[in-house]
Amino acid sequence: MNDLASVTTGTLIAADKVNGTDVYNFQGERIGEIDGIMIDKITGNAIYALLSCGGFLGFGGRHHPLPWAVLKYDTDKEGYVVNMDKKKLEGAPNYDINLKFEWTPETGRKIDGYFEVPSYWN
Amino acid sequence: MNDLASVTTGTLIAADKVNGTDVYNFQGERIGEIDGIMIDKITGNAIYALLSCGGFLGFGGRHHPLPWAVLKYDTDKEGYVVNMDKKKLEGAPNYDINLKFEWTPETGRKIDGYFEVPSYWN
Repeated sequence: MNDLASVTTGTLIAADKVNGTDVYNFQGERIGEIDGIMIDKITGNAIYALLSCGGFLGFGGRHHPLPWAVLKYDTDKEGYVVNMDKKKLEGAPNYDINLKFEWTPETGRKIDGYFEVPSYWN
Repeated sequence: MNDLASVTTGTLIAADKVNGTDVYNFQGERIGEIDGIMIDKITGNAIYALLSCGGFLGFGGRHHPLPWAVLKYDTDKEGYVVNMDKKKLEGAPNYDINLKFEWTPETGRKIDGYFEVPSYWN
C-alpha cells in the first residue's frame, strides 16, 4: 500500500488497513480479526466484513462473513464489537476459504437472516 | 487476498479488488486507475478513492483523491466514470505519495470543495 492511503485521521481509514482489526463479542472477548471487506461497487458501502477466527497450524481457517451492520466500532478497544455471544457467533454461517466459495444472493440472504439484519439481496 | 473475498457476484466486490479498476473522464478517455479507497471506519462507507494517473519510469506517480460521490460505475466499461473533463481533473488537488502526506480535515475540505460535493468534514 502506498503512503497516501496509509495515513489516517479520525474515522477515515484505507480500506485494506481495516484488515487485521480485532473483533470482540459483547462480553469483550476477542473472537478474531477482520480479514477482508466486501463493498457495493456502486455505492461504495461496506456490506460484509470477513471475520477470521484463526486456525490451528494452518488448518481450520474458516471465515464468518458478518453483515457490516452488526459491527460497532469501539474507539477504546480500537476494534469492532459484535453484540452477540460466542455461542451465537460460532453457529453463524462460515466458509472454508480453501474450498470453492460462491458469493450468491442465497448465501447472502442466509447470512443476513442469521444475523437478523435487513438483507442486502432483494 | 483469500479466495472467499476474491469471488464477486453482481455489485459486491472485495474492497481491495477495487484497486486497479479503470477510471474514465466523461469523454470516455481512460485517465487512470483506482489505487486505494478511504472508508469511514464506523459506517463502512467509501469516502474517497485514490486515482493514480501513472507516472514515467516511476517518477511523477501523483495521486488525486476523488470524493466517492463523483464516481459512477459503468457496467459496460467495467470501470468508473468521472463526469469531468481532463483539464478540470488535471487541476484537482493531488499529492505525491513519495512525500509526507497528512490526511487532515483541511485537505479533505479542499478536495470536496474542488469537486463541489457536500463535505465529509463538518
